[in-house]
Amino acid sequence: VTTTSVADCGERALIARVRDRLAMPSWVVIGPGDDAAVVEPVRGALEVWTTDAQVEGVHFDRRFVSPEDIGHRAMAVNLSDLAAMGARPRAALLSLALPATLELTAFDQILDGMLALGARFGVTLVGGNVTFSPGPLMLDVTAVGTVHPRRILTRARARAGDQVFVTGSLGDAAAGLAHLQAGRRDRAQPSESRYLRPEPRVRAGILLGSMRTPVSCVDLSDGLADGVRQLAEASGVGVSLDATAVPVTDALRTDAAALGRDALDLALTGGDDYELLFTVRSSAVGRLRGVRGQMDGLALTRIGVVTKSRDLVVRDGASTRELPQGFEHFR
Amino acid sequence: VTTTSVADCGERALIARVRDRLAMPSWVVIGPGDDAAVVEPVRGALEVWTTDAQVEGVHFDRRFVSPEDIGHRAMAVNLSDLAAMGARPRAALLSLALPATLELTAFDQILDGMLALGARFGVTLVGGNVTFSPGPLMLDVTAVGTVHPRRILTRARARAGDQVFVTGSLGDAAAGLAHLQAGRRDRAQPSESRYLRPEPRVRAGILLGSMRTPVSCVDLSDGLADGVRQLAEASGVGVSLDATAVPVTDALRTDAAALGRDALDLALTGGDDYELLFTVRSSAVGRLRGVRGQMDGLALTRIGVVTKSRDLVVRDGASTRELPQGFEHFR
Repeated sequence: VTTTSVADCGERALIARVRDRLAMPSWVVIGPGDDAAVVEPVRGALEVWTTDAQVEGVHFDRRFVSPEDIGHRAMAVNLSDLAAMGARPRAALLSLALPATLELTAFDQILDGMLALGARFGVTLVGGNVTFSPGPLMLDVTAVGTVHPRRILTRARARAGDQVFVTGSLGDAAAGLAHLQAGRRDRAQPSESRYLRPEPRVRAGILLGSMRTPVSCVDLSDGLADGVRQLAEASGVGVSLDATAVPVTDALRTDAAALGRDALDLALTGGDDYELLFTVRSSAVGRLRGVRGQMDGLALTRIGVVTKSRDLVVRDGASTRELPQGFEHFR
Repeated sequence: VTTTSVADCGERALIARVRDRLAMPSWVVIGPGDDAAVVEPVRGALEVWTTDAQVEGVHFDRRFVSPEDIGHRAMAVNLSDLAAMGARPRAALLSLALPATLELTAFDQILDGMLALGARFGVTLVGGNVTFSPGPLMLDVTAVGTVHPRRILTRARARAGDQVFVTGSLGDAAAGLAHLQAGRRDRAQPSESRYLRPEPRVRAGILLGSMRTPVSCVDLSDGLADGVRQLAEASGVGVSLDATAVPVTDALRTDAAALGRDALDLALTGGDDYELLFTVRSSAVGRLRGVRGQMDGLALTRIGVVTKSRDLVVRDGASTRELPQGFEHFR
């Protein structure tokens, strides 16, 4: 059996291979294949632009992250950034740096994972670039969304007295990654799939933006502690988290014990959950009921309060400790 | 003397370091520092999006390409793509994958080169991403421009009988690169600086778009032969080039001889010139006089004709040969 590598195929043929899979909506005046894409902006909307990279050996390990997962994750982390702004995804550009030995089937599967997730959120891949990498596989996605001016979520709107919430449950992805790294469990487990196939909280972000009250929001890529720190810094406030309220599943508690870790610690310092952390004025908390009803069962959990003092603390019953540092890939 | 690396500095501090250098115009509603940038689109204009990567060991060699050059080139190749669409540059996003050992001063110089070129063309850096690379230094720039619907240049508008033109002179960058690779000459030489500091033909692209006649255009990143091939394929036509008309400077002829190469061959198959190749209806060639007068001395040279037969040929006096293949990094 001979396998074909991306180098056998060549740069132009790879680009043509991607282009053949894409269908363009009418607002794309010129799609992939020219020097650049030309698109009509949405009237009356602001545009939201973000770019995020996935680098082999830093963000994923090809021994246990499949090509489809790699493609899914590269798109998901960008859609998660759009979600944190309350934006509706619209388009993406993809820049790939490929090891020459990458199999063509793996290349196709990366696209499969990326395009499948994109399609679920109405994302059109309008352009991109393919080049060779003498080192790791790298994927850079630029995602573009739209948001109406009064519906933008930022990091900088938290005020003392606001209530702090989080979507879904935390720590699962970190537990899943730990199991995958140890080679102990297969990828079909729930926590493993939380790591391999993060679900961007796009609908939640859009709904939070529709509340007509100031909402501060950040997505949790590097753990709850990091998200709290970033939101608090941007808003010039402090946060007091209630350790007992942080949403960790029973399955995570069991997982954490098996890993010799504390479930709360995984939630605070483990990355890759891609849930939304947000603050709402106390007076507007009631409006979350309507939002919750439209979130298809996604949990919203109150986990703390914004404080005037800029301290970042975790309360656990009677004791209070400083918020730990989050995870930083560079360190 | 101790030097500080980007890893010593850390991801967040690097991002803050970039952010501190930037000033945002009023159309940037939310700039760098949040989950994504939020911008107002330009009323009545279409948007032009492109992304292009520069990978160490593929697109540049740090032994003779300085950090400023790297930054300049990463921005230039994207502005050149905008130029080929007739677009006016507006904004950019930057995704960096950095070896941990990269010196902080080099990081700053990469930004220097990129921001200096961007500023000359009115580009605002509105967002980006910084991550670690376990391999080569990689820079991915996404550039955004605007164009009015009737002023778009595409690759697909050439028709039999159109005249083929090129801006500036060709082959210099390839000669410069060859000298730099051989360690034979310094970076201050004209052909070396053509390679190290390509000048995107933004003004030329905008002027060509204003001619009110169908113009096909592509930028020359991988040699004239490759550009001709791409434009012809997109338009479904052939091209007959006149070898004696291809603009090569006397300096290049001397350079080529010293390198044991043919000047025309460098022009046809050498990359990195970033001139614009374009076609104009024969009836509209006269309008180029007005355009030429506004191009600050940039040459426009007629180098061939578009043919109905889809052959791609180079005529040289009485002889005719097939157009050579262009340069492809992947092969």
